[in-house]
Amino acid sequence: MLATHDPDIAELSKEISKEAALRMAHRLVAKFPTVIAAYHRIRSGTDPVAPAPDLGHAANFLFMLNGRMPEDTAVRAIDTALVLHAEHSFNASTFAAREVASTQAHMYAAVAAGVGSLSGALHGGANAKVMQMLLKLGGSEKVVDFVNAELDAGRKLFGLGHAVYDVDDPRAHILAPMSKALGESTGNPRWYEMSALIEKTAKEIFRERKNADIPVNVDFYSASLYYYLGIPVDLFTPVFAIARIAGWAAHVIEEQFAGAAPKPVLYRPESEYIGDYCGPEVCEFVPLEKRGPR
Amino acid sequence: MLATHDPDIAELSKEISKEAALRMAHRLVAKFPTVIAAYHRIRSGTDPVAPAPDLGHAANFLFMLNGRMPEDTAVRAIDTALVLHAEHSFNASTFAAREVASTQAHMYAAVAAGVGSLSGALHGGANAKVMQMLLKLGGSEKVVDFVNAELDAGRKLFGLGHAVYDVDDPRAHILAPMSKALGESTGNPRWYEMSALIEKTAKEIFRERKNADIPVNVDFYSASLYYYLGIPVDLFTPVFAIARIAGWAAHVIEEQFAGAAPKPVLYRPESEYIGDYCGPEVCEFVPLEKRGPR
Repeated sequence: MLATHDPDIAELSKEISKEAALRMAHRLVAKFPTVIAAYHRIRSGTDPVAPAPDLGHAANFLFMLNGRMPEDTAVRAIDTALVLHAEHSFNASTFAAREVASTQAHMYAAVAAGVGSLSGALHGGANAKVMQMLLKLGGSEKVVDFVNAELDAGRKLFGLGHAVYDVDDPRAHILAPMSKALGESTGNPRWYEMSALIEKTAKEIFRERKNADIPVNVDFYSASLYYYLGIPVDLFTPVFAIARIAGWAAHVIEEQFAGAAPKPVLYRPESEYIGDYCGPEVCEFVPLEKRGPR
Repeated sequence: MLATHDPDIAELSKEISKEAALRMAHRLVAKFPTVIAAYHRIRSGTDPVAPAPDLGHAANFLFMLNGRMPEDTAVRAIDTALVLHAEHSFNASTFAAREVASTQAHMYAAVAAGVGSLSGALHGGANAKVMQMLLKLGGSEKVVDFVNAELDAGRKLFGLGHAVYDVDDPRAHILAPMSKALGESTGNPRWYEMSALIEKTAKEIFRERKNADIPVNVDFYSASLYYYLGIPVDLFTPVFAIARIAGWAAHVIEEQFAGAAPKPVLYRPESEYIGDYCGPEVCEFVPLEKRGPR
């Protein structure tokens, strides 16, 4: 039973330099769109498209996704959307990445936690839900009745209202005109027009009934925008990751190499149990000697 | 450019039941030791060993790792160690798992964040460092001089002192006698004896110099214990994961299915920047029009 192994003891804790972390970040930023576009090409029965060295980062994503050179308006739109979604303080995925990074784990482990957070239904899926709503309505005719019915029933409208802000997300004001322009240039203004009408209707109702504003958030117009760009609805959240990887990586580097003071430390919050999941009324404690044989 | 895709819209947000989450938890608890033992067998040039259906969980790990039936004292020791390490409140890896779970991401995404946290140098590697110290010292002769020299130099002794506790970790008092017994039964009491002497010496010095106790933590005696069990030093942290997966899974289930009130919500803390990583003195802001061409 005596231990005979003693492998790689010196290798147990390798330190990662800031330069190595930056290289990891660059690799991840570069590869996210390539991987996501290739995944979509393969599942669609078409061959993956290699990135074109002479195209920019945003243009390359559309090129690899759709297999043809994107138009300038499309490139400008996706580029803007990626920049607007790159960072947003301590949202759930960024906080998860920083928590993992706070243990001095490497960039990939931290980013995996960010991606994992984004897979949750409560984080990052709002613009897909907006697009589902638009597709279900199909056209502007039903919008006013629909919005009234939803608000009458006390339901939320996806993309309207925000947990933190009570004014319009300024990013929505940048994306909305781009969605409008793409709708016009593709000869299919429907999805933009429906969005604008939903926002207008909801705002009028809120003002009338509650004397309050309902703010539009960034996901509301990115829905139609991405749809115009030929991005499948189930890739809207992966596109969010293509944008946010820049922010995740920057946060991880800040967490681990934040210069002088204060030195970052492990996140290990105290907790106080306030639930009722397993109090004495719910779970009976059985002393060890009264439990059955194992 | 008009979107032609509309795949799997109904599949975008599948809800996972508590029963499914429990099945995922059982699978993970079962497979962690199997995967880690197989990894070690393969890298050692030996064939992986399938789990024996008639052995318990802890016994199976040693069986799959070492390829032979473990002795009863060894089984009792690893079983106890796994139970003692199964849960420990909101430590870094558990908090990371809960953060990811708070988005309603599935069990695997949450547990991946826990594993990622554990890969960091600041979380979970202390008993490996204790064992490196013991191996480097080689025997009890040098212990007293070593401990004096380390404390004189103001350095920390791995496994002694704790960020949260200022009394001995009670888990250490359970593991220490088991390490002692294994040392005696293997005819190689050295690693236990050195550990006990380091603890005794450090405590005497602390009491004399600072009139204070230096607490022993759980990692101090798990080092020699695991070594006696034939566990390679670089698998000490993976063995921690074999134990902690039970706690991670329980926390994830509590986070997502915590019964009545309060309903768990997304973790999205506010942040206030207090660092000096990129203030105006460090990073110059260059207006857009003065930046070079892209």
